[in-house]
Amino acid sequence: MPDKLRISDRGLQMPASPIRMLAPLADAAEERGVKIYRLNIGQPDLPTPQKALDVLKHIDRKVLEYSPSQGFRSLREALVNYYERYQIKLTPDEIIITTGGSEAVLFAFMSCLNPGDEIIVPEPAYANYMSFAISAGAVIRTIATTIDEGFCLPKVEKFEELINERTKAILICNPNNPTGYLYTQHEMNQIRDLVKKYNLFLFSDEVYREFIYTGSPYISAMHLEGIEQNVVLIDSVSKRYSECGTRIGALITKNEAVRRTVMKFCQARLSPPLIGQLIAEASIEGTEQYSREMYEEYVERRKCLIDGVNRIPGCYTPIPMGAFYTVVKLPVDDAAKFCAWCLTDFCYKDEATEDGCAGETIMMAPAAGFYSDPELGRDQVRLAYILRKPELKRALLVLEKALEEYNKR
Amino acid sequence: MPDKLRISDRGLQMPASPIRMLAPLADAAEERGVKIYRLNIGQPDLPTPQKALDVLKHIDRKVLEYSPSQGFRSLREALVNYYERYQIKLTPDEIIITTGGSEAVLFAFMSCLNPGDEIIVPEPAYANYMSFAISAGAVIRTIATTIDEGFCLPKVEKFEELINERTKAILICNPNNPTGYLYTQHEMNQIRDLVKKYNLFLFSDEVYREFIYTGSPYISAMHLEGIEQNVVLIDSVSKRYSECGTRIGALITKNEAVRRTVMKFCQARLSPPLIGQLIAEASIEGTEQYSREMYEEYVERRKCLIDGVNRIPGCYTPIPMGAFYTVVKLPVDDAAKFCAWCLTDFCYKDEATEDGCAGETIMMAPAAGFYSDPELGRDQVRLAYILRKPELKRALLVLEKALEEYNKR
Repeated sequence: MPDKLRISDRGLQMPASPIRMLAPLADAAEERGVKIYRLNIGQPDLPTPQKALDVLKHIDRKVLEYSPSQGFRSLREALVNYYERYQIKLTPDEIIITTGGSEAVLFAFMSCLNPGDEIIVPEPAYANYMSFAISAGAVIRTIATTIDEGFCLPKVEKFEELINERTKAILICNPNNPTGYLYTQHEMNQIRDLVKKYNLFLFSDEVYREFIYTGSPYISAMHLEGIEQNVVLIDSVSKRYSECGTRIGALITKNEAVRRTVMKFCQARLSPPLIGQLIAEASIEGTEQYSREMYEEYVERRKCLIDGVNRIPGCYTPIPMGAFYTVVKLPVDDAAKFCAWCLTDFCYKDEATEDGCAGETIMMAPAAGFYSDPELGRDQVRLAYILRKPELKRALLVLEKALEEYNKR
Repeated sequence: MPDKLRISDRGLQMPASPIRMLAPLADAAEERGVKIYRLNIGQPDLPTPQKALDVLKHIDRKVLEYSPSQGFRSLREALVNYYERYQIKLTPDEIIITTGGSEAVLFAFMSCLNPGDEIIVPEPAYANYMSFAISAGAVIRTIATTIDEGFCLPKVEKFEELINERTKAILICNPNNPTGYLYTQHEMNQIRDLVKKYNLFLFSDEVYREFIYTGSPYISAMHLEGIEQNVVLIDSVSKRYSECGTRIGALITKNEAVRRTVMKFCQARLSPPLIGQLIAEASIEGTEQYSREMYEEYVERRKCLIDGVNRIPGCYTPIPMGAFYTVVKLPVDDAAKFCAWCLTDFCYKDEATEDGCAGETIMMAPAAGFYSDPELGRDQVRLAYILRKPELKRALLVLEKALEEYNKR
């Protein structure tokens, strides 16, 4: 009899998270007294809206009970108003509240895809899509976009080369994590035509819609005509209100059969987090001022990071149009090794280093984890510009010094 | 080309939740002004510990940020102390915080089982195990336990009849949901021997350990010697602190390979709910008085419900030893129809009915949803004794009247 205690094949296939895999090294560095600039994760440092934090003080519930599996209706109504600002017309019934955008992706895959079904995803792509695809037994087929072309979408023929009878969906992230790319109207129309021609699902992760810096229009998958039954929108309040810890996202679709199926997965897990929903609801309305200030802050940070990176010898990043990430080519062979080395072997100290601090270093996400081809992105990292400008500037200096020392070894 | 927009096979297989499927009917009844005694769901009415509620008022975080994928170390340390009270020795590293016990079950299945692998589960069983098994592509093979035998565990031979080369795990819920059954030392030893003999995983859902009424010992799967690498414990703070909405559970195992794999699923979903973890941590220590009072309250409720049910003509329930559920045989052919009818066609009114209330009815979970064989449990419901005694008494009266009227139609 074989060893029945072996773990599952999908467990073996699950990739280590490029965003979180270095956390133990970072913890150890911190224990040595090293200050770390964490640009590895999309965890904004901005305060959650005060209005949302105040909710915590005024919860007068005596029982922290289950909420409806679909999420509170009042939250879904608030989201209806929110989407209206973006010319997306919805009813509360078309919105399902999930435990973070993560669960929305998982339930979309679980509900729409059979094991072996294929999803086409432009890459580099958010690494956890792969994890959720593996969870659902689905297969991600990637279309490469390149740093040299600024990560723009490849020609429609490239998609068509991949389409076969197992192809069931296209997945996009717009604005894009990790590249910061924003799809143009022309590109979105291409996607629409493909989706219509082959009758595919279009999973569209638009959690960064608030973060668009170029004046280009935000084209939601929900704006595309003629594919209303095909689109499943993934959303999350995490980034736009700096409340990643609340774990509140949403799965939105006009396709009733999909919603009915997703609801079965929702009922199985009973309900999304109660307090998170209360915080999310308070965050959505009356926070226009907050959103404006946040936006202006990110405009500055983006400029600071992009300019700074491109001034470091051997570094290059295209200018991201949205989100708060950018992919950077580094003058190293293996960025993953370099990222680990920064945490294990390097720290920088000068007169600006705080007293009592053993030194400073930088934590980055190796970009290889965002590509399926092991040869791609090996010399790239993803940086999130989620720190204040003085800290970002310091992080850039530390990065420059780290690269100098690494390449001198 | 086939219709690519069809939903997934697993989506079609997913059962409707027996606990939540009637919610739309209940909502409609409530809109008509009907008062509903909700005995369908394990949502205690008791207040969450004040100490835990107070945490909400004193959160001085400015950013509601991601927490570690494994959960806060301080929460895991508090749980180590908690389990010590039950003679379960753990380290914080052996505990992984999950988004409710639900996620712990899902991640256990995802990590340990391949599609087609079989899990043996005594039934009736918590309906959502089936949903999580379908999500993982695993197959649940059930061993019937019967109301006439008080839902005790069948002889070991019954298990062995089901064991084949695809069998990878046994899953128990102890004390049991939905039956309230508590496994004896003898039964647990049987399970241990089986697990050892066939080298199976033992998934043990013990979220109701606080609710044991007979003075019988609580035998955790973690107490069983010689199968330390086989056991995966599922836990949740939901029930014992009346905080189901916080969505905080745990997956606990001494098996490092399993933990490493589970952690990959945890990293993909980034982190468990932040505020829920703070509440859970405050709930665990210094709440002995709360737990004692809660326990005494449930002792009373159990007596009230069991006595009351068994006095209704044609009704029968064995005496549950733990948890806060019991399975009741009703004098109807199809309990699911009766449960729906109670919400759509029935309401009771007498001089005790509150002014302005259109009448009263009862919401129950049809037990068929807890059995895999469609012929089993058709005349049974699961009742949760999660209301105060006066309300439980009233609910029992309403149930009796509903049965009278239903059988007179």
